[in-house]
Amino acid sequence: MDPRADRLSRIAPFEVMEVLALARRLEAEGHDVIHLEVGEPDLPTPERVVEAAARAMRDRPMGYTPALGLPELREAISGWYASALGVDVPAVRIVVTGGSSAALLLALGAAVNPGDRVAMGDPGYPCNRHFAAFVEGDPLLVPTGHETAYQLTAELLEAAWEPGVRAVIAASPSNPTGTLIPPEEWRRLAGLCADRGALLIADEIYQGLTYGRDPETVLSVADDVVVVNSFSKYFQMTGWRVGWLVVPPGWVRDIEKLAQNLFICAPAPGQYAALAALEPETIAVLEDRRAELHRRRDVLLAELPRTGLRVRAVPEGAFYVYADSAEVAPDSFALAGRLLRERHVAVTPGRDFGLAAPERHIRIAYTQPVDRLREAVDRIAAAV
Amino acid sequence: MDPRADRLSRIAPFEVMEVLALARRLEAEGHDVIHLEVGEPDLPTPERVVEAAARAMRDRPMGYTPALGLPELREAISGWYASALGVDVPAVRIVVTGGSSAALLLALGAAVNPGDRVAMGDPGYPCNRHFAAFVEGDPLLVPTGHETAYQLTAELLEAAWEPGVRAVIAASPSNPTGTLIPPEEWRRLAGLCADRGALLIADEIYQGLTYGRDPETVLSVADDVVVVNSFSKYFQMTGWRVGWLVVPPGWVRDIEKLAQNLFICAPAPGQYAALAALEPETIAVLEDRRAELHRRRDVLLAELPRTGLRVRAVPEGAFYVYADSAEVAPDSFALAGRLLRERHVAVTPGRDFGLAAPERHIRIAYTQPVDRLREAVDRIAAAV
Repeated sequence: MDPRADRLSRIAPFEVMEVLALARRLEAEGHDVIHLEVGEPDLPTPERVVEAAARAMRDRPMGYTPALGLPELREAISGWYASALGVDVPAVRIVVTGGSSAALLLALGAAVNPGDRVAMGDPGYPCNRHFAAFVEGDPLLVPTGHETAYQLTAELLEAAWEPGVRAVIAASPSNPTGTLIPPEEWRRLAGLCADRGALLIADEIYQGLTYGRDPETVLSVADDVVVVNSFSKYFQMTGWRVGWLVVPPGWVRDIEKLAQNLFICAPAPGQYAALAALEPETIAVLEDRRAELHRRRDVLLAELPRTGLRVRAVPEGAFYVYADSAEVAPDSFALAGRLLRERHVAVTPGRDFGLAAPERHIRIAYTQPVDRLREAVDRIAAAV
Repeated sequence: MDPRADRLSRIAPFEVMEVLALARRLEAEGHDVIHLEVGEPDLPTPERVVEAAARAMRDRPMGYTPALGLPELREAISGWYASALGVDVPAVRIVVTGGSSAALLLALGAAVNPGDRVAMGDPGYPCNRHFAAFVEGDPLLVPTGHETAYQLTAELLEAAWEPGVRAVIAASPSNPTGTLIPPEEWRRLAGLCADRGALLIADEIYQGLTYGRDPETVLSVADDVVVVNSFSKYFQMTGWRVGWLVVPPGWVRDIEKLAQNLFICAPAPGQYAALAALEPETIAVLEDRRAELHRRRDVLLAELPRTGLRVRAVPEGAFYVYADSAEVAPDSFALAGRLLRERHVAVTPGRDFGLAAPERHIRIAYTQPVDRLREAVDRIAAAV
C-alpha cells in the first residue's frame, strides 16, 4: 500500500536545509560555524512584540479568529500602508494569513487551474515553483541575469510568454538577490499581465528592508494585483507564522472561503503580536535594525572583492548578496560544500533558486554581526 | 482580468460561519444568544500552557523550527501515545503541523492525484471534501445513517467503493455526530484500504474527549495509516494552530519536503505551548474539563427528548449531538434560522456536513455551561 501523489516528484526539498543540517553537525563536533545560509534574521522578535503577545494570551481566550484575520489587525495593516508607504489599501482587501506561505497557497490556489503556466523570475524563492506544482500548475521559469539585476522585467516576461500563463510571480526585494523592481517596471509588468489576462502576484515579504532608499510597493502603481507580505522579515517574527495578502476587492469572498477551509485562521498569538509590531515604538526599534543590516551589507560589498566572488547587481534590500562565483570555482554547489566542510562558513548554493546559472552563484545571507561577516570573508578568501 | 481557478466552484463556504455572523449581529442588537454552533471549546487554554508559552517567547528567539516540528515536541507526543493510549509511536513518525488543517492538506497533497477519488463518511467534517477538491481529487461521499452511528464501516465503504479511490477519511470521535469507530471496525477499514491500495486517513482530532470510555486510536490496531490529530480540542488550544500527523515511516521524507515548501514550519509559540499541554499537571486540568463536558452531554441527552429532537446514535465523544429534527420541522436549515432569529439559540444545520439527509439533522455543540444548555432546551421546546 503506497499511494503517493505524482506532484511529489515535482517538488524538491530545500538544499539549504541540507546545508543547515551539515552545519549543525559540524557545530555539534565543536567547530565554529558562521551561518550565512538561512533566510532568517539573527535578531529576536522585538521585546515589545513579545510582551504584547504574552499579555494578549493571558487576557484573551486564544480561540479561532475570523478566517480573514482579526479586524483590528487588518485595520492596522491598512494604516501601515498609509503611513509607511503612502498608499490607500482598505482593510477589507487585506487577508491575514499563516505566514506568506499560506498567502502564496491561497493566491495560487485561487488563480491556477491544472496545467496553467505560472511564470516567475529565475533565480527566485524556491517554494514559488513548488506552490505552483502543488496546485497542479506548471512553473515557467524565466531566466534572468545581472543585466536586469536578476529581476523579471516586462521585456523578459513578454519574450518568454507562453500560452496558458495564468499567473506571474515577481518579488521585490528579491530572495536570493536582494535586488528591487522599480515602480516603473512594476507598472509595465502589471500592464502586461492585465493585457494577457494573467494575475500578477507581487512578493513583497522583504518590504521595509531596503538600504539607501525608502520601501516601495507595487500598490502605488497598480491595483488589480495580489500582494504577498509577511511579518517574518522586517518585523522579525519568522516563527510566529503571520503574513498577509492584499487582493482585488472582487477576490475577498473566494479567498475567505479557501482560508476557512484550508486554515480556519492564522495563529492567534502571532496576530496579537503583529498588532504590536505595527506600533510606532516597535517601528523605531526595527528601523535601528534596518540600519544595522545596511551596515552589514556595506561591509560585505566592500570586502567580498578580495575573495574573487563578484557581486554583479547591487543588492538594495532583503539581507542577501547573490554572488557570482564563476571565477572562484566552476561549481557553486561543490564550492559551498567545501567552504562549509573546510572553513565552516555556511552559504547556500544557487541550485536552490532555479535553473538560471545556479552553478555560478551562491547566496550569502548577512544575518550575522559585522565582525562575523569580516571573519567569514577572511575564511572564504583563504579557501579560494 | 479575472483568472479564477475552477476549484473555487467546488469549495463551499462554512454555513456555520453565516450562522455565527447572524448570531453576532443579534448580540450586537442586545439579544441574549446561546451559542451552540461553533466547534470550539468555551474553556480557555489552560493557564499553565499560556504561561509556558509566555516564558518560551521571552527565553527563545521564536524563529523557524524544523519543518517536522520541535524535536522535543515530537518526542513528547510519542510519550503521550505511550502513556495515554498504550501504543508505541516513535517520534520519527510524528510531524507537527499548523493545526490539523495543515495536517490534512499535507496528507491529501501527498496521496491524491488529480481525479483520484477520496472516500469519506457523510455526514462529516465539511473541510474534508474541500481539501480533496483543493488537490484536484474527487470526493466520494459515502452516506451513513443512525444504523451505523453515522459512521463509515468497512461494509458501507466496500459497497460504495468506486474505481480510483486513493484515500479514505474516517473520524473518531466524529464531527458532527460525536460517535466513535470501535477498534474492530478500524481494523476492518484499514484492512479494506490495504487490500485496495488506498490510504486510510484517521481523523482523531477529538481524541481525549470521550465519555464513559477511554480514548482510543486506530494505531492500536493498524500501522500503515495516516493519523491526523490536534491540540485544538482536548487540549483547548484552537487559536494556536498546532496539530500533528502520524505517518508510515516511508512517508516522512516526502511529508517533510511538502511541509518545508508549503508551511516552512508550524507556529513556534504554539509548539512551545503544546509541550506544556502534554505535562501531567495540564492533563489533570483537562481531565476535569472532560468530566464537565461529560456532564453537559448527559444533561443534553436527558433534556432534548422534550423538544422533539431525537438523538438516534449516542454521542460518546467530541462535544456534539447530531439530532434528528424531522419530527419537528421538515427543513433543518429553516429550523436553525428560526431558532436563531426567534429564540436566539444558534445551532448548525446539517447542510454543512454533507448530503446524507442534511435537511433532517442539526448539530448542537455543548460548548456552554449546563445552565445555558438547559435554557437553550427550554427555548427550543417553546419554539417547536
